This record gives sequence, C-alpha cells and structure tokens, in this order.
Amino acid sequence: MTTDLTPSPVRLHAVAGRGQPEPTPALEQLYRGFEQELLVPLWTEIGDLMPRHPKSKAVPHLWRWEKLLALAAQAGEIVPVGRGGERRAIALANPALGGRPFATPTLWAAIQYLMPGEDAPEHRHTQHAFRFVVEGEGVWTVVNGDAVRMSRGDFLPQAGWNWHAHHNAATEPMAWIDGLDIPFSYYTESQFFEAGRERVSPAERSTAERSYAERLWGHPGLRPVSSKGAQPASPLLAYRWADTDRALADQLALEAEGQPGTLSPGHAAVRFTNPTTGGDVLPTMRCEMHRVRAGAATLVHREVGSSVFQVFDGSGTVTVGERTWQVARGDLFVVPSWQPFSAQASASDALDLFRFGDAPIFEALHAHRAEAVG
Amino acid sequence: MTTDLTPSPVRLHAVAGRGQPEPTPALEQLYRGFEQELLVPLWTEIGDLMPRHPKSKAVPHLWRWEKLLALAAQAGEIVPVGRGGERRAIALANPALGGRPFATPTLWAAIQYLMPGEDAPEHRHTQHAFRFVVEGEGVWTVVNGDAVRMSRGDFLPQAGWNWHAHHNAATEPMAWIDGLDIPFSYYTESQFFEAGRERVSPAERSTAERSYAERLWGHPGLRPVSSKGAQPASPLLAYRWADTDRALADQLALEAEGQPGTLSPGHAAVRFTNPTTGGDVLPTMRCEMHRVRAGAATLVHREVGSSVFQVFDGSGTVTVGERTWQVARGDLFVVPSWQPFSAQASASDALDLFRFGDAPIFEALHAHRAEAVG
Amino acid sequence: MTTDLTPSPVRLHAVAGRGQPEPTPALEQLYRGFEQELLVPLWTEIGDLMPRHPKSKAVPHLWRWEKLLALAAQAGEIVPVGRGGERRAIALANPALGGRPFATPTLWAAIQYLMPGEDAPEHRHTQHAFRFVVEGEGVWTVVNGDAVRMSRGDFLPQAGWNWHAHHNAATEPMAWIDGLDIPFSYYTESQFFEAGRERVSPAERSTAERSYAERLWGHPGLRPVSSKGAQPASPLLAYRWADTDRALADQLALEAEGQPGTLSPGHAAVRFTNPTTGGDVLPTMRCEMHRVRAGAATLVHREVGSSVFQVFDGSGTVTVGERTWQVARGDLFVVPSWQPFSAQASASDALDLFRFGDAPIFEALHAHRAEAVG
Amino acid sequence: MTTDLTPSPVRLHAVAGRGQPEPTPALEQLYRGFEQELLVPLWTEIGDLMPRHPKSKAVPHLWRWEKLLALAAQAGEIVPVGRGGERRAIALANPALGGRPFATPTLWAAIQYLMPGEDAPEHRHTQHAFRFVVEGEGVWTVVNGDAVRMSRGDFLPQAGWNWHAHHNAATEPMAWIDGLDIPFSYYTESQFFEAGRERVSPAERSTAERSYAERLWGHPGLRPVSSKGAQPASPLLAYRWADTDRALADQLALEAEGQPGTLSPGHAAVRFTNPTTGGDVLPTMRCEMHRVRAGAATLVHREVGSSVFQVFDGSGTVTVGERTWQVARGDLFVVPSWQPFSAQASASDALDLFRFGDAPIFEALHAHRAEAVG
Repeated sequence: MTTDLTPSPVRLHAVAGRGQPEPTPALEQLYRGFEQELLVPLWTEIGDLMPRHPKSKAVPHLWRWEKLLALAAQAGEIVPVGRGGERRAIALANPALGGRPFATPTLWAAIQYLMPGEDAPEHRHTQHAFRFVVEGEGVWTVVNGDAVRMSRGDFLPQAGWNWHAHHNAATEPMAWIDGLDIPFSYYTESQFFEAGRERVSPAERSTAERSYAERLWGHPGLRPVSSKGAQPASPLLAYRWADTDRALADQLALEAEGQPGTLSPGHAAVRFTNPTTGGDVLPTMRCEMHRVRAGAATLVHREVGSSVFQVFDGSGTVTVGERTWQVARGDLFVVPSWQPFSAQASASDALDLFRFGDAPIFEALHAHRAEAVG
Repeated sequence: MTTDLTPSPVRLHAVAGRGQPEPTPALEQLYRGFEQELLVPLWTEIGDLMPRHPKSKAVPHLWRWEKLLALAAQAGEIVPVGRGGERRAIALANPALGGRPFATPTLWAAIQYLMPGEDAPEHRHTQHAFRFVVEGEGVWTVVNGDAVRMSRGDFLPQAGWNWHAHHNAATEPMAWIDGLDIPFSYYTESQFFEAGRERVSPAERSTAERSYAERLWGHPGLRPVSSKGAQPASPLLAYRWADTDRALADQLALEAEGQPGTLSPGHAAVRFTNPTTGGDVLPTMRCEMHRVRAGAATLVHREVGSSVFQVFDGSGTVTVGERTWQVARGDLFVVPSWQPFSAQASASDALDLFRFGDAPIFEALHAHRAEAVG
Repeated sequence: MTTDLTPSPVRLHAVAGRGQPEPTPALEQLYRGFEQELLVPLWTEIGDLMPRHPKSKAVPHLWRWEKLLALAAQAGEIVPVGRGGERRAIALANPALGGRPFATPTLWAAIQYLMPGEDAPEHRHTQHAFRFVVEGEGVWTVVNGDAVRMSRGDFLPQAGWNWHAHHNAATEPMAWIDGLDIPFSYYTESQFFEAGRERVSPAERSTAERSYAERLWGHPGLRPVSSKGAQPASPLLAYRWADTDRALADQLALEAEGQPGTLSPGHAAVRFTNPTTGGDVLPTMRCEMHRVRAGAATLVHREVGSSVFQVFDGSGTVTVGERTWQVARGDLFVVPSWQPFSAQASASDALDLFRFGDAPIFEALHAHRAEAVG
Repeated sequence: MTTDLTPSPVRLHAVAGRGQPEPTPALEQLYRGFEQELLVPLWTEIGDLMPRHPKSKAVPHLWRWEKLLALAAQAGEIVPVGRGGERRAIALANPALGGRPFATPTLWAAIQYLMPGEDAPEHRHTQHAFRFVVEGEGVWTVVNGDAVRMSRGDFLPQAGWNWHAHHNAATEPMAWIDGLDIPFSYYTESQFFEAGRERVSPAERSTAERSYAERLWGHPGLRPVSSKGAQPASPLLAYRWADTDRALADQLALEAEGQPGTLSPGHAAVRFTNPTTGGDVLPTMRCEMHRVRAGAATLVHREVGSSVFQVFDGSGTVTVGERTWQVARGDLFVVPSWQPFSAQASASDALDLFRFGDAPIFEALHAHRAEAVG
C-alpha cells in the first residue's frame, strides 16, 4: 500500500436527494470502498461538475485604482525589484477564488510599479502577457533587445517565450497593468520559465520613440516581405493610443453618418490583432478597447469565459451580474463566465474601457458561446 | 464595504528568502493593506505560479481493474441509474488533487457499469467524451438516435452537445471506461448541460452490428459527398477493434520488413482521428492505441499536458516519473504533465495500451512541447 | 525598336456595336498605335473576357471505351514504352480546344496501356495524377519504392513530385485511365519534371496484395502516430473497390431505412479524401465515385470548373448541356464549366460513374460556385 | 458520327526523335485513328507539356509609360466611356501570347483613363482587381457605395464581386493602372459579370479624403469588433502612399542601424495584406512595393508564376531573363514564370517598383517554388 493513501483524500457522504441512492449501510460500505481506492462517483458530483450553464466560482468585483496605486506606491518604497521576485507586480485576487492571485479562473491582472531608474530583470516565460498604460510614461520594455516605450493608452502585447525586461528612464515612478494567462497555465500545468540577464545592455536601454517592431509592423495593412508566414502571436509590440483613439472616433463618426461600424448604437470597439493572421493578438487573450458615447449604453451580453476591464477614461456605471458600480479612471473589475455585462456612459462623458478576456481559448476549442441577454 | 471582504480570503505572510523583501513592520503593514484590498504580490507566489517547467499537482497513480470492477459491480447492486444522477460512473480521483474526481487536472476517467436491461437516461453536455471497452459487450450507446454497439476493444467518441443514452440489451452486466474533459471545462467554466428523455424510443434501441455513422463514415479515405466540410469532432461514432488491431499489426510487420511506420523499434501506435480534418478525434482529447512488441520497450518521453492509460491487453511494466508498476489487463494509470513515461512489454506478451490525453488543447494554443528524455 | 514587334501580333478592327466607339479614321489610327505598342483595349474584348457566366471554350463530348481500347491495343503493338516518350498514354482531345490533348481547359484524361512484362520508366513531375481501373489487373505502380497493385475499381492517387514507374507483372495487357492537371499547370506555367531510373529495382517489383501505404494509412479513422501533421496530398496510395462499393451500397441502404446519406434520392456518392486533412485527395483534383440506383436519376446541377466522367459499370443516359448519350462501361465524357449535368440509370441496372474535376482549385481561391438547375 | 468531328481538329505527324516510335505506315494508320477519335498521344507532346522547369510562352517585355499615356490620352478624346465597353482601359499584350490582351498567362495589366467629369458605369465581376496610381489624382472609385479617393502612390484593391464605378471629380484627366486576374479566370473558365447602374447616386459621389473602409480598417493592428472573422479579400479599400513610403523608409533605416527588416542589403519591400487574415490582399494576386536604395541592387531571384512591375519612382535598370532595360517612372514590364529577375537603382536615386504577381494561386495549391539564382 502506498503511503499517499493514508488517509485517503477522498471523503464521501451519502445524502438524500434527487438522483442519489438511498443512504443505507450498504451504500456507506460502498463509499468506504470508493474512498480506499481513490474513487468518486459521478452521481454525488454532477450538480457541481455539469451545471446547465457555467456557474463561475469567481464573483464580480471592483478594485479602485486610487487604492491600488497607493499600495503600489507604498510597495515602491519598501519592496525592491530584482532576481527571484522578478517584478513589483501586485495581483487582483478574486474574493471567491480562495485568496489566490487570480482575477478570474484563467486570468491574472496586476498593477506593476517601477521607481525612477529601476530595472526589472530580464526573463521569459510561456505565459502570454501584455501591458496596458492607464496613465504615466517613462518606462521602456525591452523585448528581445527591442526597447518599447510605454505611454498613456498604449497596449503592449508580450507573447510567451520572448525575453523581456523593464527600465524606468524617467524621474517619476510609473504604474501600469499587466495581464497574463497565469491561472490558465497554472491549472493546465503547461508553463515554462527562464531567467535572463539582471540588466539589459546599455544599447538596449534605448529611449526611442518607436520600437523596431513598430517600424517593421506598425503600418496599416503592410507587412515586410522579409517576414515569413503566420506567427502564433503578434510581432507588433506596441499599439499606440493615437491609433486606438482615432479608430474609435472614426466608428462613432461613421455611425453619425449612418454607416455601419459600431457594435451597437453609441458603442464603438476595436480589437487588438495579430497582423500575421488577423486573429487575436495573443493565443489565449482577447484584448479590446471599447468606447461608449456620452449618454449611451452597451447592450447586455454574456459569454463563455471571463474578462477583466479597466476604465481608461470617462465616467459611468457598469453592471456585472447583480452588481453595479460607478466607475472612474483606472478602476478594474471582473466579469466571470456567463455573467451578463453592460456599461453606461455618464451624460457628459464618453466611457472608455479596456478589456481583456480568455475567449481565444474557447474559440480555438470550438467551445465559445455568446448571447444577448434580455 | 462589501460583505464578501469580511474577512478577506487573502492571507499574506512575510517570509525571508531569495527575491523576498525584508520582513519588517512596514512590510507587514503593506501586506495587511494588500489583504484588505484583495491583492496578492507576485513575489511571494512566483515560485508556484511560474516554475521552470510544469510541476504537476497531480501524482502518478495506478488503479487496479479488478478492484474497480468489484466496486462497480457492488454499485450495480445498490445504486440505481436514472435522472439526476444520470450515470453509474465512478471516477478516478488523483490522490494529490484534494479528493476531487479528477484523474489529472484536465481529465476525467471513470468506470461505468450497466446491469442487464438497464437504461442510462438521455442527456447532452458540452464536455467531450468517449467510451473505451476493455472487456465485455451487450450495451448500445444511442447518439442522436443512432445505436452504436460497444464491444471489446472498441473506441466510441462522443463529441460535446450530442444527445446520448445507453442501454444494456444483454443478459450480463457490462463495464467500460468513460473519458471526458470535465476538469478542464470545470476550471475554465465553459460547460453546458441539458437533460433529454428518460428512455430513447424502441426504434432507437436497435441492436444493429453497425451504426448509421459507421456505414456513412467507416470507409477508409472515403467521405459522403452529401456531408459538408470540416467538423469540430469526428462524425464516426465507433472505431472497431478489428481495424485498430490490424493497423497495429501492420506497423510491426512493416518494421520487420525494414519499412518505416512504428514510433520506435517495437512500438506501434495509431491515433483515432476526425475524418473530416485528419486531426484529433475530439477537440480537447487525443486518443491513441499503442502496442509494444513482446520484449520491447518504448522510448522515455515527456510532454506538456497529462494522460490516462488503460492496459488493454498483455503484460509488462510501466514507469511514470519515479513510479514503476507491473500492469495487467484493465489497469489504469495517470501520467501528469511533463513526467517521463515509458513502457516495457514482458518477454512473452505484447503490451497493448489505450491512451487519452489533453494535447489538442495545447496544440491549438501553440503551447505544446514534447521531448525525449535521457 | 525590338524585332519581336515586326510584325506586331496584335490585330485590332474597329467594329460597330454596343459599347464600341464609332469606327472613324481617328479610331483606326488609334488602333494602329495600339498595335504598334502591343496594346489591346478592353472594350473590344470584354464580351469574350467577362461573360455573365462561364462560357466554356470546351464542348461536351463522349469517347467510347471500345474505340479507345482498340486504338490503345494497336499502339501496344507498334509503339514502344521508354525513356523520352515515358508512357504509352493516349489523351482525350476536346474537339473545341484546337487539337490540344486537353479533355477540358484544366484536365488531362488518357488511356494508358501496358503490355505483359513491360515497364514504364520512373519519373516524377509536379503535376498531380491518379489512375483509375475500369477493368483488368496485373500492373503494379511503384511509388517511391512502394509497389501498388492495380485492379478493377481501384483508385490510385499520385500526388506531384513523387517518383513513380509501372510494370505489368501479368500475362495480359492492361489498360487504365490516367487523370492529371496537365492543362492547368500548362496554362499557369508551373510544372517541373525529372527523369528517374529506366527500371525500378527487383525488390521494388513486388506483387504484394497491399502496398506499404495501405498498411499504414488504409484503416478507417486511424493514423500512424509516427506520421507528422497535414500533408498537401493523400499518403494513401490505393482506394480499393471493395471499400468504395461498400460505402455506396451503405448509403443506398441507409436511404432505404429513411436515414440521410445519399446526395439525392437514389444517388449515392463518395469522395476520395486525404486522410491527413479530410479534404480532397489531391490539391487540384476532386475525385469521386457516384452510383445512381436502377431507375433513378441525379438532380440537374452545374458548377464552376470542369469534370471528366468514366462509366464504371451499369448503363443509363447522361446529359451534359444540350447533349445526351446512352453510356456503357468505360465510356468517358466531359462536362465543361457551368454546363448542367445529370445522369439517369437504366431501369434494370444501377449506374456507377467515376468522376474527377478541378473544383479544389476554385475552392482554394474562393471562386467556386455551384447550383441546382431547373 | 457527330458533325464536330469533320474535320477533326487533331493533327498528328510521325516524327523521328528520342522517345518517338519509328515512323512507319502502321504508325501513320494509328495516328489517323487517333485523329478520328479525337485522341493525342503523350509521347509526341511531352516535351511541351512536361518540361524540366516552367518555360513560359510569354516573353519579357517593357512598355514605356510615355507612349501608353499618349495613346490613352488620344483614346480619351475619341473613345467614350459607357455601358457595354465599360471602361476606357487599354491592356498590355505580351508579344508572345498571340495578340491576346494578356500581360502574362494569368495577369491583365491596363492603363485606364478618365476625362474630367466622366463616369465609368457600375458593374461587378468575380475577377479580382486593383488600381495603382503612378501619378495624378482627382478620381474616386465607388465600391458598394463607398467613395475611395485615388492619388499618387495609392494602392486600391478591388476584390471580386463588389460593385464599383469610377468618376473623375477634377478638371484634369487622370490615368492609372488596373491589374486583374482576367487571363487566369479566362483559361479556367470561372468568371461571372453583372452590370449595375449607369451612374452612382450623388451621395455616393463623395470626394471625401478617407473612405468608410479606411476609417474602419485603416488603423494598424486594430479591427472593428463588429466585423466577423476572416474574409477572402481585404476590406481595406485604399493603402495610402504615405504609409507605404514610411514603411519602406523604416526598413532601410533599420538596416542602417544594423537591424533586420530588408529583404537583402539595400532592398526594402512591403506586401499589401488582407487585415482579416494577414495573407495576400487578394486571393489570386500578390501586390507589393519595393524600394532599392540608390546604388544598390536586388538579388537575382526566380519563382513559379509571373509578375508585372511598374516603376513608381526613381531610375535604374532591370533585368528579366536575358533582357535588360533602363527604366523610368511609369514604365511597365513583365517577368514570366521562372525567369530570373533583378533590379539595380541608379547611383543617385532609389528605385521604387510596384509589383503584382500570381503567387497566391500557387501557394494555395502547394505548387509554389522560388529560388535565388547564381
């Protein structure tokens, strides 16, 4: 007998209920046999395992940016950045996921904070990542030697297994959010990690306005002929706010002219894509920017899989399942799987929402579903 | 303040260690702030979340068929089958996964047992499933009205969201194994379920030798012109043992003639595929039959993702990580992510192993890795 | 001035007509200028170049098998087979394609004839090919060293750039048809050719019942795990009549039981597919076998692209555009692009039709259209 | 006997030669039999049909822009534009293709000319098309109601089966080039055409700077969330010169900084792509802009399939097979299949070349080959 069977981790209790066998001594004896052999019957678990539709363990929750930022700034004073800890990143822990640093069952969202002159050391991992900048500037992310400027509104994808480091070249601290598929790779046990240099070379610590990647890939509809075929993730390392903002404004202007383009009246949205495939920017994460015109609202919608939103600008209210919040710049909230979501801009301001979610996983596996609600 | 914050599920402890900040009162105060705001720093978790390579929570484990079968037979006597419990299925619970009915973090494996004359009611679910028959016969699975015979050695895929029921038309009980992606859909919260009829119609309770599906799709390299394009999962509902056995025998015979075909010397293997794509039979599960020639052994191999094996025939030893077992017909064992696996047939018998794993998930997401060990 | 302009190959004539400019001296002068500069206006050509729907240059035509076979046998007596001429193959020349050996603008169809003991030398070419055997046996095709038996009803794909030779191991001559995409590669100028050995080695002159390819790939829904991914063309080198016949019989039996499967009442059809993709067996040619039940007829159908049919068995009538023929075993006929086609079996016999066409070209380029007529 | 056999279009002549049968009376009699039955042997044709590598019927040729433009202007004076003739387009006729308006066996290239105030009527066709503007401005192309400005350096794809018209809103004539796959669809007989309105509505005769399409799709890496999936051709209707020019300049600047990006030293190139797939902008045509730095040269390269180039700017020499030309703005030349091509910029000017070719056809069919020469 192996020692890991003493005591067995399986615990079964005969309970009355629809589809449950009569709690008899024979049943109890059977269940003790199951426990001893590390077996669990379907009939006691089916309600949890096979619900009629997804019932997320996670709950809707909102984190206020001001509180996050204050704590991150406090961490900036007392927690050093370096090898081992790797990043001064502080993750959202969904209150219903047992204290784990998981915003949703598949997604990690963290605020990262870098003091003036600081370096976050180089590493690479198979988890896909991105950075999104709700405010500030001054940090460059160095990806395989290519320095990428980070400024307000910019979206920087960071596909798995690329070397990357950060350095703050400015005189102010800078904060941004990191999104990763850490929980997904954690549950599916598919992650690799490798540490690189403590600091990137001086030449790589460029503060250029545009990265090499942008100069090669940042031209609409144009690809370098020297590049080869489809790549799993985007080779474009920065999607600049000026482009995103203009695309959203264009959609709303088209709508005003009676042309199609918005998702629904007053609701513009663009998706960050991989220019080598036209698909999602990262294999496991869908990243989008949404704009709700002042006074307008989105439709109510739900889908398989979870999302995290950050308010980029404006004000309004958002509703997730049975929760409704007034939101302001920087606030972060989660939408668990199959929970209805809607957003309403205030009467005076458009509401800009950055969103990332795990839909590409389900689309790749033919398991995605979405529907309008009500 | 929302009630779900009292008390916070987050618990942080300052500890000394590489990459950890000095445990000071200021740090303790910071951690209390994190707890209050439902935040968790990366630096305390990175070792668990971002290992150098997958370190599975699951452990290698073996279940003996004779013990499973005895318990299933006992359940046959005292646990009825019907609406609510749905199936007399008893699942393998990996000893290191907290008593959950999960063979691995992504895979469910159960023995199902049906008494003579019994019906398992109709339902459908988005989880993908299959049945594999290590011994016995007499049950038909009715899939969308198509009765599919189950006999020793047969593999029956059951793609998500198809109606299905089982009925035992024989005078003996019958057992078989069910494989599903229940844990994967559970963690990713993407599952739907719908109950159907208590019993399928008499016309559907056919005991035909071949299902409609086999008559349409069971001809090598031929597809009905009336069918349309690629389908996410196989429309062929039974892969018969006679075909599988012959394919394995052919590979070993080719090897004996100096022709390529086997995976390595003495190791033949076939994969069950979706004839509309040539890819895996199910979107989330790879299913294969392996044969190791008497006296031969497989290479040592590891890959991202987990597998469950059932010994179909013969005898030999299998090694998973640091565990080695003598195996016999019907025994089931698990190979956690990135653990080395090898098998050796006995000197006198070939060893036939049925295997299913989650590799299609990782391949679809460009996250698969595999390598020879040693 | 370059010499190739004297005289210019361009000849323009001003003609009256809708959309044509007034024939004036100025126009004539303009046209002379066009001729000199090797220019042709759209307006004189648009009717031919841009018709409302495809208007094939090819015409429907039927070749009688008995006449082909007699001429091929005569060629067997007086035309040797060997290097340079390569094959004793005699091609159908559509009467409206200027005497070129093109059955249709994209397809080549020929009868090939091999005397007892003869060898056709080894070569390879990028043109895709297949053989189909309407009667006889005794020849083996050797593909990259794999000897593939040819017998009545067998379909043997021969994807581009594989070495192949034929040898007649029997005491009788044998005839079969070859289908290739020679005209397509000719017009698009994309073909490569390489000569191989005069004779394959004795070991390769096997007369085995089953080829290596069949032993690896001829099992329904099963692929060797040792094989890698999708291949442009089928690795299965023979599709045997016993399988094709059974698949067609199964479809008609399913129809009789009220189950779906046939294309239309009384019309069964199977497509030869590439088991690594589920798609067409060859990148440029769709190959199918059709069976019309005695007394039944197909629907009337037309599609972009052309086809060649060979009557495999039975009797009946076929209608192509405005032509109708009584057909018998071995007869070959062509269906030009967008011409309606239908077939009717005689009252007493089913009609079995082998068909190959160029649809994969148009599907790959998103240019395929098909419709029911009337 | 059918009338279309009298006289037979087939003409066979027994000739001596390698691989040819002895010219005997018996052979002559056989050939007469072939002619009567509309048959052609492979052995007399194989040299033409199956060359060792593509030997194009087309020849390299250059058309001087000044001559084209002069003739087009002359046509502007005397040839009206309207229904029936449809377009004042004048096509390049390769001198070796029998006077047909085919620049190469698959590609059509024409100069189109529109006088001030003129309209070219609306129509649609399955042939794919594009416009490229070497000089001038003032014309808008209206595509499904969306007015697209045409200015120097702009590339405007026009995927098959979209309604389109042109109107010149300026006070000067305007010329540009049209590229289409007319010869390809002509040989493969796959074309449809439909006439639309004589004139588009006043509202559609917009002279907006940016089209609706550009406002929706012209943002780098961003797609409207309201759009659905992959489309066969690009929804972006204009690729502006400012973007193309910047992308080329960026590549050369990267090269100067030691970064990858150019195709070879001094040779920058971008491909116009479909943002919904990352692939070629049109299913049958690859369109690119190349820039050779002053004093630099491209490598010598050949590939399956043909191309047409137009000199956009600068000066230099180009070599196609055994022809070499000094080129200037607007000159057009063709590169037949498998003919080596290279270009050299003059010492003082960069050389900008627009290129379109048929490579997507061959890539879709797995028939593409390319290689460096020498």
